[in-house]
Amino acid sequence: MQIAIAQQNYHIGNFEQNTQKIIEAIQWAKEQKADLIVFSELCICGYPPRDFLEFQDFIDQCFRAIDKIKEHTSDIGVLVGAPDRNKRREGKDLFNAAFLLHEKEIKAVVHKTCLPTYDIFDEDRYFEPAYDWHLVPFKGKQLAITICEDIWNLGDNPLYRTCPMDILVEKKPDIMINLSASPFDYDHDDDRKEMVRLNVLKYSLPMIYCNATGSQTEVIFDGGSLVFDNKGNVVTELKYFEEDYAMVDSQNLYSPDTSQHNSHLDEKEFDKEMRVSKVNDPDKIIDYLVQERNIREIHAALVLGIRDYFNKMGFTKAIIGSSGGIDSAVTLVLACEALGNENVKAVLMPSQFSTSHSVDDAEQLSIHLNNPYSIIPIKNIYEAFMEALKTEFNNLPFSVAEENLQSRTRGNLLMAIANKFEFILLNTSNKSELATGYGTLYGDMAGGLSVLGDVYKMQVYALARYINRDQEIIPVNIIEKAPSAELRPDQKDIDSLPEYAVLDKILYQYIERRKGPDEIAGTGIDMSLVKRVLKMVNTNEYKRNQFCPVIRVSNKAFGIGRRMPIVAKYLG
Amino acid sequence: MQIAIAQQNYHIGNFEQNTQKIIEAIQWAKEQKADLIVFSELCICGYPPRDFLEFQDFIDQCFRAIDKIKEHTSDIGVLVGAPDRNKRREGKDLFNAAFLLHEKEIKAVVHKTCLPTYDIFDEDRYFEPAYDWHLVPFKGKQLAITICEDIWNLGDNPLYRTCPMDILVEKKPDIMINLSASPFDYDHDDDRKEMVRLNVLKYSLPMIYCNATGSQTEVIFDGGSLVFDNKGNVVTELKYFEEDYAMVDSQNLYSPDTSQHNSHLDEKEFDKEMRVSKVNDPDKIIDYLVQERNIREIHAALVLGIRDYFNKMGFTKAIIGSSGGIDSAVTLVLACEALGNENVKAVLMPSQFSTSHSVDDAEQLSIHLNNPYSIIPIKNIYEAFMEALKTEFNNLPFSVAEENLQSRTRGNLLMAIANKFEFILLNTSNKSELATGYGTLYGDMAGGLSVLGDVYKMQVYALARYINRDQEIIPVNIIEKAPSAELRPDQKDIDSLPEYAVLDKILYQYIERRKGPDEIAGTGIDMSLVKRVLKMVNTNEYKRNQFCPVIRVSNKAFGIGRRMPIVAKYLG
Repeated sequence: MQIAIAQQNYHIGNFEQNTQKIIEAIQWAKEQKADLIVFSELCICGYPPRDFLEFQDFIDQCFRAIDKIKEHTSDIGVLVGAPDRNKRREGKDLFNAAFLLHEKEIKAVVHKTCLPTYDIFDEDRYFEPAYDWHLVPFKGKQLAITICEDIWNLGDNPLYRTCPMDILVEKKPDIMINLSASPFDYDHDDDRKEMVRLNVLKYSLPMIYCNATGSQTEVIFDGGSLVFDNKGNVVTELKYFEEDYAMVDSQNLYSPDTSQHNSHLDEKEFDKEMRVSKVNDPDKIIDYLVQERNIREIHAALVLGIRDYFNKMGFTKAIIGSSGGIDSAVTLVLACEALGNENVKAVLMPSQFSTSHSVDDAEQLSIHLNNPYSIIPIKNIYEAFMEALKTEFNNLPFSVAEENLQSRTRGNLLMAIANKFEFILLNTSNKSELATGYGTLYGDMAGGLSVLGDVYKMQVYALARYINRDQEIIPVNIIEKAPSAELRPDQKDIDSLPEYAVLDKILYQYIERRKGPDEIAGTGIDMSLVKRVLKMVNTNEYKRNQFCPVIRVSNKAFGIGRRMPIVAKYLG
Repeated sequence: MQIAIAQQNYHIGNFEQNTQKIIEAIQWAKEQKADLIVFSELCICGYPPRDFLEFQDFIDQCFRAIDKIKEHTSDIGVLVGAPDRNKRREGKDLFNAAFLLHEKEIKAVVHKTCLPTYDIFDEDRYFEPAYDWHLVPFKGKQLAITICEDIWNLGDNPLYRTCPMDILVEKKPDIMINLSASPFDYDHDDDRKEMVRLNVLKYSLPMIYCNATGSQTEVIFDGGSLVFDNKGNVVTELKYFEEDYAMVDSQNLYSPDTSQHNSHLDEKEFDKEMRVSKVNDPDKIIDYLVQERNIREIHAALVLGIRDYFNKMGFTKAIIGSSGGIDSAVTLVLACEALGNENVKAVLMPSQFSTSHSVDDAEQLSIHLNNPYSIIPIKNIYEAFMEALKTEFNNLPFSVAEENLQSRTRGNLLMAIANKFEFILLNTSNKSELATGYGTLYGDMAGGLSVLGDVYKMQVYALARYINRDQEIIPVNIIEKAPSAELRPDQKDIDSLPEYAVLDKILYQYIERRKGPDEIAGTGIDMSLVKRVLKMVNTNEYKRNQFCPVIRVSNKAFGIGRRMPIVAKYLG
């Protein structure tokens, strides 16, 4: 049997475009003489559709799209993902389903069993798990069809009570097919290939694994669809971070090789614990965070994340506040790569506390990048604010109010230009700042999309060095100088925060590993510092709550994947 | 058996305070000669603890609190709610549990079966449902203990596959006890009493129903704990929106009355559909939204929501931008009621587009309320901005950029004063504005807590009239004039939005009822208007995503209970 794989980038709720894209892939597969074409999870509506699933009209549109696609299946089997209605008396209204379309009919429907409901996933919110399990016959073969998380229930301590492949294998399938929408993070992408391989080895069956690509606001789907033979060898691996297509002859998936490929990972490592970021040894955290492989992938993911956000929102132009610091420099470079340098405007807004080298460095960066930039000093606006507040402030000493006022003045200027010329403001805050609340709401925390909000400061440095690997794009002075917000004379980050190498080590253990203060302090860091940092993280939840979407590259990003109470007093 | 009920207000993660509060109630119950005291769901850590449940240290602290409380149970049974660890090989790590403490031991643990995972609820994210069901013997009685949603699985089309009371009733219990954390909304609070009654009538057993009170950021728990006899009569009903305690003799819960009380609702009405707001007839929507009973309850809920947010965050003083419009007027009155008029500062910030009556009306309001206020004109700041942007804007005509700039200048002034004097900025946007995106990010959308974000404009009017029921607190001119943002000459809301009576009718059907455009237009509203409004709602998701927490009073509030993709193209 000739099987085609379509790894595509869908737009949530854009039924017309998604349907068109799917039909074009079917046409291509027909030309390739495919018997069957496999698409990714919920490809009809895009993943994750979130609460749109509660709208009957939205579900109706899914079925109408399937009806349209059905018309193109007279001589090819088409396996698509879409929500199905639950017609039983009890349970949630929907299933997360795979539909086999053939001969202009729905030939079979398979329901997902393991519904991820952690981190960014909310599938129990919408879907009822499968009630029963069956193989799908197609052209003389018995297909064991599963959906994404269905094959992630291995190990001694699995997350779900039912493992659908354990049931299906008893019915003697010929091949496994999995429709996925499995998001990228640098901590987890190798796991995916090993997870597929472990399934192949466990059930001695080949697997067609079709993943989605593209970004959906904060979540990046990185593609990398796979075909494994029954001995655990990769037969085909599709591209990462872009659309791709492949054809495979199922006959070639039964290896005569008697020696079985071994996974370098044991099934035990795929306990539910695997869903937590993997570095436990505190001394290895920083090296892990900045290792080149991770930085390279983060770079690719962020460029895709920016580009796809603009594409799908219908925007073309970005604006960035360029301070001469490393965060805005890296953001600017990534945006130029994603959108084209001519579409990214930098605005330099020096105050009386800005050092001259900051303006020079920022200007030099835009000269390197050849992107448009303006310089707008904020002194007069700041003074107009202070004059208006004179009676109110009554000669009280300079404080955080005046610092924030400068930051918010810059936010206002950027938003005014954005509103005037239809730019989207890209935010430049990094994960270490967001974690500790080292930023100004409505000031430097403004923006439509956060580029670096899931990138620790130590990783921002590594990204800058990676960007400069062949030539000096970011002026070295930006990389080498001591970080500063420049909101009062001689201010340095180090006045308010610990060294970033220490800070990021604490933050990773608290955010990615969910360790408590005793465990973190047990790793050789002073308890009072640990408590101070954890208190900063918890008491600044209210700021992050008003922050824009963060492109997710780690296993635990701020935003929809990390849900904390605001009114709370835990370690605070 | 003498049973005490403790309806208390907990603080999430504040183990010391929660434990203290629970121990004090135990002491009181002992003095009342109680055999048993019942607390609410997850009282040990506060509900909802959200992702703190992923921290082992947080769970350890729950168990340490139980250990402390246990010491006070030598001569009284204590039923408390807390997470329990799942020791089985598969499934989520935790159960949502009730612990019976007695004679300084944990005598029994009951696990929750029906885990709400919709709207504001995320219980499947953390908890595994119960594996088995058993009665708990205590002092010769057999207790059927359930937790909150466990008793909400009635009707012909229930939400969950298992109804734990159906299993427990077979084991011949003497009484039902339910530990709840059931949130308030004006659409749903009567349902709760009827739901408890229907359980009582279905199983012919009395019920002790203990709810929490107090607010947790956006969610209000309104108390109203209940004791029903086995014939469906209310024996005791605790106070609403405040802490309260009661004692009941279980002997009095078996009525000799042979005629059974009837619920005015049928079990069928408690299908899973009941979780959706109830008015389906479009002609009745506005009357329903503004009916006095709802407005009275919304008023009480908002005052509690403001007060408890400040108490739990450790703040005392609020600041509000007072425009002379109805939204800021109502917010100001509610804040004064919640925090004391001396703790609420109003700032009037007229621009060149403000009408003189706006300033006069806002000033008159603060004179009525006797709260501090300042007047800070924004003209000079606005001009400083425009001067700085002169080259950039290059004489382009006045547009939304200049409108937003005024709004953001006001936001900056409010935040500057808030930062200087430790005020918290209360946001004044209403639900109709938030829905349509009729507001400025970082401008009038700024603030730490949204008071009216779940209150439609028509309800804001009704609240204003309710506030003025005995005397003119809000100047009638504020209520009667045409609403305007006053950001350009002669601007009126009606220039950009339909009449609020029509707008709110469309919004309610889309937001609360999840109807599609065909269904809404089918109710006599022009299709092009329906499409325009729905498009406004969907394309402004990015603004609401950066909005502060909204005190939830309806069945479907913006915020954590409504989760929409930003990058999407559905009806947009």
